[in-house]
Amino acid sequence: MRAAIYMGTKDIAVGDRPDPRIEAPTDAVVRVVLACVCGSDLWYYRGESHHDVGSIGHEFLGVVEAVGAEVHHVRSGDVVVAPFIYSDMSCPHCRNGSTISCAAGGTFGNGTSDGGQGEIVRVPLANSTLVKVPGHGHSDAMLRSILTLSDVMATGHHAAVSGGVQAGATVAVVGDGAVGLCAVLASKRLGAARIIALSRHADRQRLAREFGATDIVAVRGDEATAAVLELTDGIGADAALECVGTQQSIDTAAAIARPGSTIGIVGVPHGAVPFADTFFRNVAWRGGPAPARIYIPDLLDDVLAGTIDPGRVLDYETDLDGIADAYAAMDERRAIKSLVRVSSI
Amino acid sequence: MRAAIYMGTKDIAVGDRPDPRIEAPTDAVVRVVLACVCGSDLWYYRGESHHDVGSIGHEFLGVVEAVGAEVHHVRSGDVVVAPFIYSDMSCPHCRNGSTISCAAGGTFGNGTSDGGQGEIVRVPLANSTLVKVPGHGHSDAMLRSILTLSDVMATGHHAAVSGGVQAGATVAVVGDGAVGLCAVLASKRLGAARIIALSRHADRQRLAREFGATDIVAVRGDEATAAVLELTDGIGADAALECVGTQQSIDTAAAIARPGSTIGIVGVPHGAVPFADTFFRNVAWRGGPAPARIYIPDLLDDVLAGTIDPGRVLDYETDLDGIADAYAAMDERRAIKSLVRVSSI
Repeated sequence: MRAAIYMGTKDIAVGDRPDPRIEAPTDAVVRVVLACVCGSDLWYYRGESHHDVGSIGHEFLGVVEAVGAEVHHVRSGDVVVAPFIYSDMSCPHCRNGSTISCAAGGTFGNGTSDGGQGEIVRVPLANSTLVKVPGHGHSDAMLRSILTLSDVMATGHHAAVSGGVQAGATVAVVGDGAVGLCAVLASKRLGAARIIALSRHADRQRLAREFGATDIVAVRGDEATAAVLELTDGIGADAALECVGTQQSIDTAAAIARPGSTIGIVGVPHGAVPFADTFFRNVAWRGGPAPARIYIPDLLDDVLAGTIDPGRVLDYETDLDGIADAYAAMDERRAIKSLVRVSSI
Repeated sequence: MRAAIYMGTKDIAVGDRPDPRIEAPTDAVVRVVLACVCGSDLWYYRGESHHDVGSIGHEFLGVVEAVGAEVHHVRSGDVVVAPFIYSDMSCPHCRNGSTISCAAGGTFGNGTSDGGQGEIVRVPLANSTLVKVPGHGHSDAMLRSILTLSDVMATGHHAAVSGGVQAGATVAVVGDGAVGLCAVLASKRLGAARIIALSRHADRQRLAREFGATDIVAVRGDEATAAVLELTDGIGADAALECVGTQQSIDTAAAIARPGSTIGIVGVPHGAVPFADTFFRNVAWRGGPAPARIYIPDLLDDVLAGTIDPGRVLDYETDLDGIADAYAAMDERRAIKSLVRVSSI
C-alpha cells in the first residue's frame, strides 16, 4: 500500500509499505477515508522532537475491511473512527480512565506501526479501540467533524475537562491553533458563560467567535495577561486552557488563572511549568494526552446531532500525494489544520 | 508584651513588642495560650528564605481579651483557634474557597504583624478569621489537637483533599514531618484503604502507623519509587501526597503517582516540578497553602468528638523563653513539631 513516510526534518514523502493484514485475532484492518495532520506532528516535522523514519499520522476515519476472529464490536463495511492511541479498556489504567497509559496500548504511525496518513491501517485491539459511526450517508462536513474526534476535538475537550470547566464559568483559552479552537467549542458545549480566546489572527478569531468565544485578546505575553485580568475584574479566569506548549503560552496560562483554579494543559510542554509561582495561589495543573477513546461516544452523539461542528478547523484539503504540502501549510500557518482525503467512503 | 523575635539565621530571641490593641472595629485581641513552630518557619530559620527581622509564628490558640465594635462572632473570654492567614470570607477569592488569596487578608508573624509566638495577637478581620472552640474544660491533649488546626493538620488535610483522596483509595505520603503525618491521618479520615508512609525514622513510623498508615517505605529516591510500585502491583498510588518540598521528594511523588492521578502538594516547592514527565501520564499537580479557615470547622468537630488526635505530632514542649530551642529541636530533628506554651487558659 501507499503511505506517507517521515524521512527527516521537513521531509515527508509518499512511499510503499507492506499491506496491512490481520495478525492477531483482535486486529481489524481499516481502509482510510479521511486523515489529518496533527499539531504534534509539526514537532518532528520541524526537527524539534524525534520520530523514527517511517509511518506517520494518528488521526483517521475509515471503513473496516477485515476483522480478526475475536473482533465482534465492528465488522467489515462499518465506518469507524479511531482514537490516536489503541487501548484494551480492561487494564488498570484504562479502567481508571487513562487509556493513554494502557498497558497493552500503543500509537498509530510511530514509524513502525501503520499510520493514519496511509491507505490502510492494521488496528490492534479493535474491539476496544474503534468506534463505529452509526447511520449512513453522512455529509462530508459531518464526516470531517467525526474525524476530529480522533484527536484534535478530543484534545480540546480534554483541556476543558482537565480545567474543570463548568456551566457559567469564565474560561480563557491560550492558543488559537486547531486544539485551542476546539477547546473554545468544548467550553461552550460544557456551558461556559464567557470564553476569552487569545488569538492574533483574524481568520482564527472569526472561527473562535463562531465556536463560542465571547471575547478576543489579540496580544501576547504580559499584555495578554493584563487584558484578561482587566476583562475579569482582576480576578483571573475560572479555567485557563493551555493549548500550545511553549514557554510563553505556559507562563500566560499561569498568570491568568485565578487562585484555586486549574489550568487544563494539553499542549505538549516545551517549556517549564512555573509551579513555585502558581503554588502560592493554589493554581493546579492538570492535563496530558487526551483519553480520546473515552470521550468519542459522547462527542460523536453531539456531532451527529449537529450540536457541534469541530470539522470546521480543517481549512485545507489535499490527497495522499499532497501530504508534504499538508505539513508545510500548517508549518507556514497557511492552514489551521490539514485534511488528507485518502479514499472515498 | 513579650514575643519571639526573628533576628537572623538561626537566631531567635525573646523581646518586647508593642502591646496589641484594637485598631479597627473588626479587630480582636487574643491572649495566646498555645503556639507552635511550623516546618515552614525552618526555611527562614535556616536562611533558605527571607523573613523580615521581627515577629514570627502563625499558629496559635488563645483566649479573646477584647473585640472591636463590629466583632460579633466571638467575644471576650472565648477560646479561639486562628488559621495562619486572616481573611474576610467575602471577597471573590474567599467565596471561591481561596482564603489564602483573600484580597484583604494577611499573615500573622510576618515581621511586622503580631505573631503567634508571642503573648498577645491583634487579629484583623476577627469575625471571619477566628473560630470559637465550643465547650469548656477541654483536656490539654484536646487543646493541643485543636492548635494543630491552625496550620499543620489543615495542611495535611489540604494535601489529601488536593490529591483527591477518596474512600478505598491507595495513598502514598512523601514526608514524615508533622505535615506528612497529618496527611496520613487526614487520608485515614477520608477513608483511604491503604496508606503508604515514606519514613525512615522509627518514632515517626510508629506515629504514622497509629495515624493509619498500613505500609512503611523506609528508603528514599529510586528505592522508594521501586518499593511503592511493588506494593501497588506496578500501578502506582491513587494519590501521592508531597509534604516536603525538596527536589527529591517532588521527584518521588511524581514517580509513584499512577496515571491520571493527582499529586497533592503542600510542601513549599524548593525544587522544580517535572511536569514534562508527568504530563504524558496525565498526572496532575494540585496544592498550595491550605485554606485552613475553611477546613477548621469540620476538623474541629472530629477533634472534639475524639475521632482524630493530630496534637500527637507535638512531641516537644517549651515556654516562650525556650523558643530558640523549640526551633533548634525541629531543625536538628530532635522534635517532629515543637509546642510553645505561652500562658494558661
